[in-house]
Amino acid sequence: MNVVILERLESAPLPADLPRLGVPDQAFLSFRDRPGLMTKREVRVQILAELALQPHQVIWDIGAGTGSVSIEIARLMPESAVWAIEKTAMGYDLIQQNSHRFSVRNVNARQGEAPAALSELPAPHRIFIGGSGQQLTAILNACAARLQPGGRIVAAIATLENLAEMTQWLQGQPAWQGHYQQIALSRSAAVGPFTRWMPLNPVTLACLSPVASGDHPKQLPQESGGDHH
Amino acid sequence: MNVVILERLESAPLPADLPRLGVPDQAFLSFRDRPGLMTKREVRVQILAELALQPHQVIWDIGAGTGSVSIEIARLMPESAVWAIEKTAMGYDLIQQNSHRFSVRNVNARQGEAPAALSELPAPHRIFIGGSGQQLTAILNACAARLQPGGRIVAAIATLENLAEMTQWLQGQPAWQGHYQQIALSRSAAVGPFTRWMPLNPVTLACLSPVASGDHPKQLPQESGGDHH
Amino acid sequence: MNVVILERLESAPLPADLPRLGVPDQAFLSFRDRPGLMTKREVRVQILAELALQPHQVIWDIGAGTGSVSIEIARLMPESAVWAIEKTAMGYDLIQQNSHRFSVRNVNARQGEAPAALSELPAPHRIFIGGSGQQLTAILNACAARLQPGGRIVAAIATLENLAEMTQWLQGQPAWQGHYQQIALSRSAAVGPFTRWMPLNPVTLACLSPVASGDHPKQLPQESGGDHH
Amino acid sequence: MNVVILERLESAPLPADLPRLGVPDQAFLSFRDRPGLMTKREVRVQILAELALQPHQVIWDIGAGTGSVSIEIARLMPESAVWAIEKTAMGYDLIQQNSHRFSVRNVNARQGEAPAALSELPAPHRIFIGGSGQQLTAILNACAARLQPGGRIVAAIATLENLAEMTQWLQGQPAWQGHYQQIALSRSAAVGPFTRWMPLNPVTLACLSPVASGDHPKQLPQESGGDHH
Repeated sequence: MNVVILERLESAPLPADLPRLGVPDQAFLSFRDRPGLMTKREVRVQILAELALQPHQVIWDIGAGTGSVSIEIARLMPESAVWAIEKTAMGYDLIQQNSHRFSVRNVNARQGEAPAALSELPAPHRIFIGGSGQQLTAILNACAARLQPGGRIVAAIATLENLAEMTQWLQGQPAWQGHYQQIALSRSAAVGPFTRWMPLNPVTLACLSPVASGDHPKQLPQESGGDHH
Repeated sequence: MNVVILERLESAPLPADLPRLGVPDQAFLSFRDRPGLMTKREVRVQILAELALQPHQVIWDIGAGTGSVSIEIARLMPESAVWAIEKTAMGYDLIQQNSHRFSVRNVNARQGEAPAALSELPAPHRIFIGGSGQQLTAILNACAARLQPGGRIVAAIATLENLAEMTQWLQGQPAWQGHYQQIALSRSAAVGPFTRWMPLNPVTLACLSPVASGDHPKQLPQESGGDHH
Repeated sequence: MNVVILERLESAPLPADLPRLGVPDQAFLSFRDRPGLMTKREVRVQILAELALQPHQVIWDIGAGTGSVSIEIARLMPESAVWAIEKTAMGYDLIQQNSHRFSVRNVNARQGEAPAALSELPAPHRIFIGGSGQQLTAILNACAARLQPGGRIVAAIATLENLAEMTQWLQGQPAWQGHYQQIALSRSAAVGPFTRWMPLNPVTLACLSPVASGDHPKQLPQESGGDHH
Repeated sequence: MNVVILERLESAPLPADLPRLGVPDQAFLSFRDRPGLMTKREVRVQILAELALQPHQVIWDIGAGTGSVSIEIARLMPESAVWAIEKTAMGYDLIQQNSHRFSVRNVNARQGEAPAALSELPAPHRIFIGGSGQQLTAILNACAARLQPGGRIVAAIATLENLAEMTQWLQGQPAWQGHYQQIALSRSAAVGPFTRWMPLNPVTLACLSPVASGDHPKQLPQESGGDHH
């Protein structure tokens, strides 16, 4: 496997003019069998914004996949330490290759499965959950227990089942508050002389934080009854 | 209240050229205090399509609000009988006023709360759930018990909590299958010489039907791991 | 070609329980080499609603492709006459096959290219433009000249270039008014135990009608300056 | 006016924990009469990503409004110089107040109207067009003439008329290439015990750059004919 990946690395060298934010998807090495299996650039920058990153933080990236989110965080916050947890051997390898490729020194890759693999990590100020392997509730419980005061958790949710699990976790946690962002983006594509739209898969970001004493969550006027779409 | 509503009726007579499908929102009498509280025309026609309506059916409209969905169904399917269930007195009154206004004779309004109010109704071939008053699971159970063979249930879901409840109900019902439609529409609005977009509130339609023996729900190739948006 | 299509017809008979509105995409015979090249059901029902169909109308479907829009109109409005114009031989053949398959008698297929092919048709009350073959402005001019009083034109626009052409046509026609609908829908798909979203390609519907004397197009309060998204 | 703004400044001090990326909208002073007239945070971060910012650049922000985009760029790229051009006196004042408030020293506010006001500015590596005051074509021509080699222009477009003007400008410029991003985001809002969606106004980002010799714009397989949504 490494041989193949090194071949790809040689065939597509890193562009010299990488931006500070919004690294192109194709700059990352990705899963050979599923090259589209990567958090897309547009979603990545929303994740970074929702994480509300500050210097000198410990950040967990759970289900890190190719490491694209970890590396984008690490480039933006060179004073912070990113811990990238990934259960597959190929993903773990990709994270290391990509870290080397982008010359980032503050991404620590760990092969393992959350929540078990989280216990050895330093307590985080920020957590991103990109993959949860049918363990979302257990992972949220572990994250809530370890998060430092003033911390934040952001989860990218692509399935209705995980969205339901997230919603119900939050309903059962009066000491936590959350908001959500629904992302529906399309990229353009040239088709002959025409420009069409290629929609990215819709994703919902959930952003969780402990309720501070005195917090009043923003409320819209309540509606009752039906027929209200 | 009736006086005020009749005044509105006189001030905005029904257009002479009503279309067979897609009645304009403003043609319906609506809640005086919340005129926007109505299933929008664009969402209404998706609901009609997902209901897969056929002649000579019994159709329930639960949480019928102004009756806009009931009346649009009744106009499209004059051979079918629509039962519009609404818990508020004002909504019940609106449904009757609107039925009279549109000269539909196959909408039966019932004031009451689901699921209790459903027991007296004839067994339905189609059910639309537009409002559930924090009783979604109980309503789904009642609907599933009464639905005729070959029937369908469509629910319009505007909140994460109801979407979670729907998702989990379906996960617990191996004899039922479902699919969803996520609706994000925008209408244009003139602003001086310019045309801008006014997005409608996003809605998810859930479409449920019993699993017929031999059904193979459509599957995409399964993906594992994280980082996949 | 016919042989292959007939084979498909035999292998997938028409469902017995076709709905009055919202025929499933797979019920239509489609282009063998590009089976996805069809106006999707959810978009089709929005087109029908925007057309504001009434009985006893003449309706043009320009760039009719497989005939899916024509046939859905014809089924909903059996008292109306649909003229389906399509430039490709395969599309013309598909329209006839699909009309036969759905037993609709009020779809008249014509092979030809718009606007030239329009001159022989009876003056329409409603026009749908689904394909314009880089002739959108010429087609709009021809349609505007032939449309009956009180008529409507609906165009489905999938490219930025056609959207620009439509916008500029309308800017140059003070006697015409228009509104737009932006459609972004996603269907669900099962992936193992999970439900994901598959977005349909975004489409914009443009709806045009002559300005009646006394019409006041709906205006939002005008904004000036920048930084306003 | 200044008095009022200073009062607002005192009543809502800047949060101590501002993130490196994704400053909350309410942290900016905004137009008193139209507080919603601001590029929303989620759109702002997409703009930053599309600009592909690198250190030591000259960046123009045309139609800068409150200065929210300029300030977010300035905070992310302290080694770069941002020029914020705004035609209204109130906007110009807001940019200065916000720059002071956020302690950024690399935003240069200029009151004036583009394209005229651009001639005095140093040649830019990056240009953001947030407002164009019905002068989009003239502004694009001026920007194209002044942009440094390897530069990029990003425009946020909220109206069909400006999208048409952009599309046609690009069609007439064989030496320029572009891609687009369609942004449709929703924020959640608590309504009693429920969480609903509040959609932001849809915006299209256009990203323009000179065609480098040897560039092959990415093409999808071309489709012909109609009925293809």
